[in-house]
Amino acid sequence: MNKVELFGIFELQLYGKKPNGSYINVDCVAEFTNGCRKVRIKGFYNGNDEYKIRFMPQETGIWKYEVQSSVVEPVCGQLECVENTGNNHGPVKVKGLHFEYSDGSQYIPFGTTAYAWTHQPPKLVELTKKTLSKSPFNKLRMCIFPKSMVYNHNDPELYPFAKDAEGAWDVHRPDFAFWAYLENQLTALMEMGIEADLILFHPYDKWGFSKMGRENDLVYLDYCVRRLSSFRNVWWSLANEYDMVFNKTLEDWDAFGTFISQEDPYHHLLSVHNWLPVFDFKKPWATHCSVQSVYSHKIEAWRDKFQKPVINDECQYEGNIEEGWGNISAFELVHRFWAINLKGGFCTHGETYYREDEVLWWAKGGELHGESVKRIAFLKEIIYSLGEIQPIPSSFANNPNDLETANNPEIINNTFALAFTKLDRVHFELVRFQEEKYSARNGDVYFLQYLGRSCQSILHMELPEEAEYSIDIIDIWEMTRENVIPLTSGKTKVPLPGKEGIAVIATRI
Amino acid sequence: MNKVELFGIFELQLYGKKPNGSYINVDCVAEFTNGCRKVRIKGFYNGNDEYKIRFMPQETGIWKYEVQSSVVEPVCGQLECVENTGNNHGPVKVKGLHFEYSDGSQYIPFGTTAYAWTHQPPKLVELTKKTLSKSPFNKLRMCIFPKSMVYNHNDPELYPFAKDAEGAWDVHRPDFAFWAYLENQLTALMEMGIEADLILFHPYDKWGFSKMGRENDLVYLDYCVRRLSSFRNVWWSLANEYDMVFNKTLEDWDAFGTFISQEDPYHHLLSVHNWLPVFDFKKPWATHCSVQSVYSHKIEAWRDKFQKPVINDECQYEGNIEEGWGNISAFELVHRFWAINLKGGFCTHGETYYREDEVLWWAKGGELHGESVKRIAFLKEIIYSLGEIQPIPSSFANNPNDLETANNPEIINNTFALAFTKLDRVHFELVRFQEEKYSARNGDVYFLQYLGRSCQSILHMELPEEAEYSIDIIDIWEMTRENVIPLTSGKTKVPLPGKEGIAVIATRI
Repeated sequence: MNKVELFGIFELQLYGKKPNGSYINVDCVAEFTNGCRKVRIKGFYNGNDEYKIRFMPQETGIWKYEVQSSVVEPVCGQLECVENTGNNHGPVKVKGLHFEYSDGSQYIPFGTTAYAWTHQPPKLVELTKKTLSKSPFNKLRMCIFPKSMVYNHNDPELYPFAKDAEGAWDVHRPDFAFWAYLENQLTALMEMGIEADLILFHPYDKWGFSKMGRENDLVYLDYCVRRLSSFRNVWWSLANEYDMVFNKTLEDWDAFGTFISQEDPYHHLLSVHNWLPVFDFKKPWATHCSVQSVYSHKIEAWRDKFQKPVINDECQYEGNIEEGWGNISAFELVHRFWAINLKGGFCTHGETYYREDEVLWWAKGGELHGESVKRIAFLKEIIYSLGEIQPIPSSFANNPNDLETANNPEIINNTFALAFTKLDRVHFELVRFQEEKYSARNGDVYFLQYLGRSCQSILHMELPEEAEYSIDIIDIWEMTRENVIPLTSGKTKVPLPGKEGIAVIATRI
Repeated sequence: MNKVELFGIFELQLYGKKPNGSYINVDCVAEFTNGCRKVRIKGFYNGNDEYKIRFMPQETGIWKYEVQSSVVEPVCGQLECVENTGNNHGPVKVKGLHFEYSDGSQYIPFGTTAYAWTHQPPKLVELTKKTLSKSPFNKLRMCIFPKSMVYNHNDPELYPFAKDAEGAWDVHRPDFAFWAYLENQLTALMEMGIEADLILFHPYDKWGFSKMGRENDLVYLDYCVRRLSSFRNVWWSLANEYDMVFNKTLEDWDAFGTFISQEDPYHHLLSVHNWLPVFDFKKPWATHCSVQSVYSHKIEAWRDKFQKPVINDECQYEGNIEEGWGNISAFELVHRFWAINLKGGFCTHGETYYREDEVLWWAKGGELHGESVKRIAFLKEIIYSLGEIQPIPSSFANNPNDLETANNPEIINNTFALAFTKLDRVHFELVRFQEEKYSARNGDVYFLQYLGRSCQSILHMELPEEAEYSIDIIDIWEMTRENVIPLTSGKTKVPLPGKEGIAVIATRI
């Protein structure tokens, strides 16, 4: 009997006649049954009269299957799904305001960005994978469509569709080589334990893929789901910068989200990324918030508002290009990673150092040249060791306009606190952005403070009286961790080195 | 005949009987006449039956004077006012959105802060003056009243008033020793070419000087004006953090400003400094804007709104104390100086490095320990050499809600610009704060860009085609200035070192 790992891919390869009409919406479905668990999986056409049905079992045991189709001969059979092994932990799922793997293993996103890496020459694609394999990153933002913008002028070798007689893209005629190549890269990422945050649409387009119209867009999405959803490491990102895809409407994005949510039998993570205003993540199909923002303090408001995990997927890139989004210092990026993680959010890396050959990591992959990566690895190790980050609400969380503030005696009897609540909304938000401190805990097991750009030489901590703590100082840039107070309880004065980029962690002994 | 320099002090010392009642509002006035120019100067009581009338002539020539008084014998006489010499350039005046000395010499404020330096032991006061004499600072923010807050717990030796029988301050009975000592310090500053930005009220008070009531406050101000307004280097600052002096109202501040404006015969610079919201500098008595803010980009809006020069008198301090306002890095402070100056504003320094003896420069003076001062001196030299800074309006200056934006075809036909105008006000302001670039010019003589925290390695400048320019790169931290393009015109690509704190200056040859 066929054996497949839990969360692995079982693939049925079937032969029949060429589809009559569209190559996408083919009549080829299999029903997989394991006890009372029943899953219907749509197949896809792969050219040369070949159909494939790919199934990712999410339960161990014997699965029976039965193919129903008007284009291939009906077949049936069974497979044994065995325990997952190695770094196969299944798809990442939402757990409250955090993530975890389907098998319950810890997953905390530390992503990077290489939008168009699969559209580059094979040698460069191989180099990118080599770089990724040695990196700390466990998620990769990447586009299905090729990309055309500054530093990205080269055409790809393969396109997702063939062209029709008039030279327009025919979404009903996939270029099977394109999809097979993409799948090879997904598999490579899967083997490295890297989630593929697949960007389905984006505005940086000279070929017309962003302007196909909703009907064609849905055909394309149908093929994506049929072909790619059995890859456990797939995440769906409807867009990079949805609001810059000027010819699509909010209704379009909602239609796409709804469609994928209905069609994807595994309910992979699904979100949409903004340029300026964040998306309305209250949409039931949105599993998490994927935002572009440089305002780390906003993580708190978004968690509160949407009650979903928040990934800051673009907080500008370490680099030296002229564009403002691509020239922050390595320190600033590491600083944002710390700030965002301590607010209970997750952060994604990108790198844009100019090169004569225009191979910038953020778009084409290649090699990493910056100084932030090893510091992100250092942070990742710390965050993984701490477990779930519970951000401590900001002292500026009092909204001047809400009733809770207006009736809170602690505020209205405190002249200073009251003055802040009387600021106009714009000023209030500037204060909050600028003055935010980053504090988190995990129950009373640890208390963590990241002091950002403050150069203070003292920190007064208020630890529980009833437990004993040991206090370490972390230098986020030098990547050092030093114990400064081996044993303390309650109010504790912690001496600090008086420089930017210091975190303090009190761990219960 | 008595000779006195233009903008010097001519002092009449008169003896009579002790005032009957208040020592402040004494009936002792002199009229000074020079041709058709006539000035009435009120005298003040100095104890021991001594009255003084101090006059700062603002025109050369022969001034005749005549004392009218019911407390001293009437006297008259004359003095010759001769040209000013040395570093005596007269009081600083407003000139458009800038400042200059009364004799037309260049004055660009580069201030520092030592709120309570005159309230410290004499040895420390002398040390402060020695430090100031070697510093680049040409303005000093200082309080008349002593100060009580964190790191400032010591009582001064002298207080401005005596106490009455009940132990309350009697504003009608000045402590003459206090005022004489203060005047000595004003004179010392004057000789060093340092403007004394005298803070008249402030909230950090354990003695009751902030709670005397409007009537007493005006008596105190009357004495200030009578005694101190003949010092050419006096500026009046109604308050440090007016909005934290919780028992005073906006009407009080307006009454104080109106009073000083009417009483001060020389119309010294007069402003008021905020904690949270900036003051309404449209008040006719306010000569300039004195603000506390960490939002450098706001300079532009305040210049536009108030049409008066803007000094950011508190943008947080270089230091290492726990309080957020006192622990920014030296680099950050230097960065803010550059940003604010290029926006056409002016910036004031402060330093708060913790010491066991609690002598922190920002309050008590002493010595400077930080790294920003020499870099501020470097900036000062550059700014003085450039002459008047004309800031180039921000590319984010389009207000989403104003009609000019709504009807501007350059915006409404540019999808990207339009998207920014549609942001909500809070988001728009965050973008502006974060993304601001700092550009200035002086006609077409020079073009200056400060790139802030951007690490870009290229800058495209658009210089006039019809003139020739030479381009220097300035490293604000390393204090280097290097010519990178000796000769260019029109569009020019400038290579940069790719680090934070870089300015570029194109000077017409």
